[in-house]
Amino acid sequence: MNDSKKLMYAGKAKDIYEAEDDDKVIVIFRDDITAGDGEKKANFQGKGNCNSLISSKLFEVLEENGIPTHYLDLIETGSVLSKKLQMIPLEVIARNIATGSLLKRFPFEKNQKLDPPIIQMDYKNDEYHDPMLNDEITIALGIATQEDLDEIRKITLKINNILSEFLKEKGILLVDFKLEFGKDSEGNIILGDEISPDTCRYWDIKTLETLDKDSFRQGQENVMDIYEQVCAMIVDEKDIERWEI
Amino acid sequence: MNDSKKLMYAGKAKDIYEAEDDDKVIVIFRDDITAGDGEKKANFQGKGNCNSLISSKLFEVLEENGIPTHYLDLIETGSVLSKKLQMIPLEVIARNIATGSLLKRFPFEKNQKLDPPIIQMDYKNDEYHDPMLNDEITIALGIATQEDLDEIRKITLKINNILSEFLKEKGILLVDFKLEFGKDSEGNIILGDEISPDTCRYWDIKTLETLDKDSFRQGQENVMDIYEQVCAMIVDEKDIERWEI
Repeated sequence: MNDSKKLMYAGKAKDIYEAEDDDKVIVIFRDDITAGDGEKKANFQGKGNCNSLISSKLFEVLEENGIPTHYLDLIETGSVLSKKLQMIPLEVIARNIATGSLLKRFPFEKNQKLDPPIIQMDYKNDEYHDPMLNDEITIALGIATQEDLDEIRKITLKINNILSEFLKEKGILLVDFKLEFGKDSEGNIILGDEISPDTCRYWDIKTLETLDKDSFRQGQENVMDIYEQVCAMIVDEKDIERWEI
Repeated sequence: MNDSKKLMYAGKAKDIYEAEDDDKVIVIFRDDITAGDGEKKANFQGKGNCNSLISSKLFEVLEENGIPTHYLDLIETGSVLSKKLQMIPLEVIARNIATGSLLKRFPFEKNQKLDPPIIQMDYKNDEYHDPMLNDEITIALGIATQEDLDEIRKITLKINNILSEFLKEKGILLVDFKLEFGKDSEGNIILGDEISPDTCRYWDIKTLETLDKDSFRQGQENVMDIYEQVCAMIVDEKDIERWEI
């Protein structure tokens, strides 16, 4: 379906194509997976399809709860129609439990509960290896205004509440996650990108087993089994029927 | 004079001794100098004395302008009576011009003017190599409250204005500087530590030549000449008379 469409942007795991309408784009979820600042790379057949379903479902849940997102429609498995945004080059990370890179950089206890959650903003910049920002530096670099940052924090905390609650019912503990925001043509801050096992830490709420990209980071052999398991936990048969895929 | 006094804390360039009064300490400025996360070390005879005079003068200027500091009296060259504080383990950095480590970590232009100044807070923690913080992480680590951080920011901006103005009259451009704060027994936030060429970037306002520890970082041979030059620029004969040293 994308043969005639123009590729606008190729990310590490997604391609963004022009859509028929000027104010929309088509997001294609690829099977590529990367970790460790892009140093570790692989390709898992079906990963893109899995993530497109998980992400579509979670964006729908957010929209139902009043969060403005770029999501418009799951066109077909792996392919999502979205609003075109002017992306803000921030990786907005919310953490409910201390794990991963946070433990290497600061003296938190392993698996320490973080309540209120920690919000961290990294500069999405490969050349500088996505350094952590503070508000003053973000503003001085012209990345965002103080008002933007306050709004992004407010929306991120709301998203954390909505997703934590929704995933808990599905047997998943939302440990941490990364969001990206953009602005629409009217300057409103809108949630973009994806929400999937590539961009979140999910733990099995009973066993605390990893249900996300940490399985790849740790070199586990069953990465795709895990992604498919999460997809089955989050996406209902009713969703599949509704999407007509 | 410190033979009978108990050493309470030995820093990289200062020793803190007990004073006769329980709520005071004696700060001894040593000749040791370090850079690069403590990897580069040296000892310059007279550096401690120089810094004690510069720091005393600048703390007096701040006190005259309504900033609460730990400074009480220059007892003798190299030795300063100060209020005892419960130190907050933050390195509070204010930057008026983009230089040094900021350029390595973020895409600022070299010598770009930063107005408003950037305030950056690093966690004073050798084991973790003084990582940069954001407010959420600082609060989650129990280092300070949001109210503390707001107050520290407010005082730091005031200090920047006062010192920039004072040093400008002395022919010095205040490029950036590091502050440390503590709390007195009543919980008030008070400026502690020192303000000297060890903790600031000073540039000659006409030639933009380095007048600070960058001379040591860059391996210049005239480090002590520079410290003595800065001391002569900042400290008047009247100060020397007044201090009776």
